[in-house]
Amino acid sequence: MSFIYHADRQRGLRWKQYFADHAPHIPFHIWPETGDPEAVRFIGTWSPEAIEDLSRFPNLEAIFSIGAGIDQFDLTRIPPQIPLIRMQEPGIVYTMREYVLMAALGIHRNLVDYIDQQRREVYEIFDVKPVAETTIGVLGMGQLGTAVASTLSSIGFDCRGWSRSGKPQQGVQVFKGEQELSVFLAGCDILVCLLPLTAETRGILNSQLFSKLPKGAGLINVGRGDHLVEADLLNALESGQLSSAVLDVQSPEPLPKGHPFWQHPQILMTPHIASQTQPESAAAVLLENIDNLTQGKPVTGLVDRSRGY
Amino acid sequence: MSFIYHADRQRGLRWKQYFADHAPHIPFHIWPETGDPEAVRFIGTWSPEAIEDLSRFPNLEAIFSIGAGIDQFDLTRIPPQIPLIRMQEPGIVYTMREYVLMAALGIHRNLVDYIDQQRREVYEIFDVKPVAETTIGVLGMGQLGTAVASTLSSIGFDCRGWSRSGKPQQGVQVFKGEQELSVFLAGCDILVCLLPLTAETRGILNSQLFSKLPKGAGLINVGRGDHLVEADLLNALESGQLSSAVLDVQSPEPLPKGHPFWQHPQILMTPHIASQTQPESAAAVLLENIDNLTQGKPVTGLVDRSRGY
Repeated sequence: MSFIYHADRQRGLRWKQYFADHAPHIPFHIWPETGDPEAVRFIGTWSPEAIEDLSRFPNLEAIFSIGAGIDQFDLTRIPPQIPLIRMQEPGIVYTMREYVLMAALGIHRNLVDYIDQQRREVYEIFDVKPVAETTIGVLGMGQLGTAVASTLSSIGFDCRGWSRSGKPQQGVQVFKGEQELSVFLAGCDILVCLLPLTAETRGILNSQLFSKLPKGAGLINVGRGDHLVEADLLNALESGQLSSAVLDVQSPEPLPKGHPFWQHPQILMTPHIASQTQPESAAAVLLENIDNLTQGKPVTGLVDRSRGY
Repeated sequence: MSFIYHADRQRGLRWKQYFADHAPHIPFHIWPETGDPEAVRFIGTWSPEAIEDLSRFPNLEAIFSIGAGIDQFDLTRIPPQIPLIRMQEPGIVYTMREYVLMAALGIHRNLVDYIDQQRREVYEIFDVKPVAETTIGVLGMGQLGTAVASTLSSIGFDCRGWSRSGKPQQGVQVFKGEQELSVFLAGCDILVCLLPLTAETRGILNSQLFSKLPKGAGLINVGRGDHLVEADLLNALESGQLSSAVLDVQSPEPLPKGHPFWQHPQILMTPHIASQTQPESAAAVLLENIDNLTQGKPVTGLVDRSRGY
């Protein structure tokens, strides 16, 4: 049996080393190298290209996403009997927690304004208030959202969460479903989007949602670019309904030159680096999942295609 | 007896309210109003102006700094029998912890580079590593330094501290005195300056110190602008010895228009807002100190003029 990896090549070399050390019986190929297609049993990929023609791999047993999301894949290209498994590994969680904490403290401390002031050589002070007086809401309380909420709370932010299931979490006020969304939003000085991208959540960050936030709220999008309606964000920043936005994700990535987000004084952008799969810890989780699959045990991160995540 | 306040007027109104609620027997004046100079027993000030002619206040008993530092004052203007007390209150500590955490995560995550990339409409990804693989060193382990080190450790940074006394702190490797400074610096991926400004520490952030850091280290200055030798920072950024700097303090504040720091792509500046005295908690500490002084008890934050802090 063999494994094909299709994602960042540099990190792929670390994956390959981990396989060599811990699963030397599984030949490891970095795309476009595939070895004998009939030997391929597993594919780990970030790119949709890897699943474009799966008929080449008649003995394929599972597809692993190398990232937390699977929205880049056309699910109809994956035969229904082949499980799709998304990445749930500690490295993604740690790095996401750190990024959102940085972004939340940044908005809390007017960092986007100060970046703009520095560019204009202006020195004006905003009042500082303690984190305990700032309420942050996390949209989406899956593995990442719950970890982020826990970290924000531990630093002293007043943190709340919203999810479809409303599963309780210690130290975080959790709101549930469509019926509690407005009440949730009304308290959020800062809103963090950590939803999966599905048909229901596409474009959820729009004027209607922004209008339910307190005036001058801040936005952090670490979900997907397509959660956001770009024109609605520009309008909300213009009207003052939102004060600033930190966008780790965009659509497309990168945005075209000249796109209004690039030079916007109230938008801080980073190139989809909020979380990054860490090769060693991810390879460990993936190898454990391969073992579980082989032994007919439950796997971590199995995608429910009817839900879309 | 009466109290004169000489600092930000807006926040002064919150001080005044706190005094009215908790010490109505102490008349509270906001500079330039002083009331009867003979009634003045205490001055709380951020501005050197308030101590320029203390002979006007023959019954003065103590001077309180409204901030953590006292370096802005000409100590020779304060008669030796008048105690000078700097502000040690929880609000300053909380806000400093939050700022340094933001700045440290920012440098750890290449934020200064990403700000510059956004300006140039460039999309390039730096590898993400977990905080545990980044060592942060805190120069100055007083009340603020120890709190900052503890917060950085709690988030997972590998944190070390350096102080004159080398007082131990749980979870933080502490280095002591001139003889251990080089060893301390050699391990710091990020260096935070939280020293008091004294004759010994003025200009301590210079080429010689930078050369002892690992190549590509980041700098966070939340001490005083005069800790830094500006030309040496520019050289270190140019040579790559330092990768980026977050400067909350400058000299003078604000810097003149056209100063090279303003537009420097590797420097992120904020207008001395890392920590800010919180009126209510600061007034509480100050009133307790007035009680202690009156009763001959020890006060919090008494300055040792021979040490300079």
